[in-house]
Amino acid sequence: MATGETQIDNGIFRVTKWTIEPGDAIPMHVHEYEYAVVPLVSETMHVINADGSEIVAEIRNGQSYTRPSGAEHTVENRGSRTIEFVEVEKLA
Amino acid sequence: MATGETQIDNGIFRVTKWTIEPGDAIPMHVHEYEYAVVPLVSETMHVINADGSEIVAEIRNGQSYTRPSGAEHTVENRGSRTIEFVEVEKLA
Repeated sequence: MATGETQIDNGIFRVTKWTIEPGDAIPMHVHEYEYAVVPLVSETMHVINADGSEIVAEIRNGQSYTRPSGAEHTVENRGSRTIEFVEVEKLA
Repeated sequence: MATGETQIDNGIFRVTKWTIEPGDAIPMHVHEYEYAVVPLVSETMHVINADGSEIVAEIRNGQSYTRPSGAEHTVENRGSRTIEFVEVEKLA
């Protein structure tokens, strides 16, 4: 199961900690807001875009990245260890 | 020595990874922008505000928090282990 814990939602930032257990995924979703991701582990994620294209994302603990709003994808953990990252969305 | 690594600066987010070695500090500074912090370790930080007040901040790996712009402080590592966190500023 993939779980999202909302840590902050103050009208400026929405911050969610995501946990994806091995074999699980965050289902297809659209990002309404620009966002930054701070990985808490160094692992491989498989990102399946809505157009069917696939990205193998090598995330590194503490190495952030950003993505524009409009991204639409599934995020899969095909590995054997738990994936955890923090997503920071800019609401306003 | 405390060091800040700018990971992203795209006009929307500025993301900086901070590393504070034992006995070191981030010198007094004013936060121009609203910001979120994602700790990468579970440690104690000592925050000395410009008004002289002191906060003992127990940060936890992956447990984010936000602060408003205008904060002015020094951040000290009085412990024996390296402190690391990622700061996400909302620029626009």
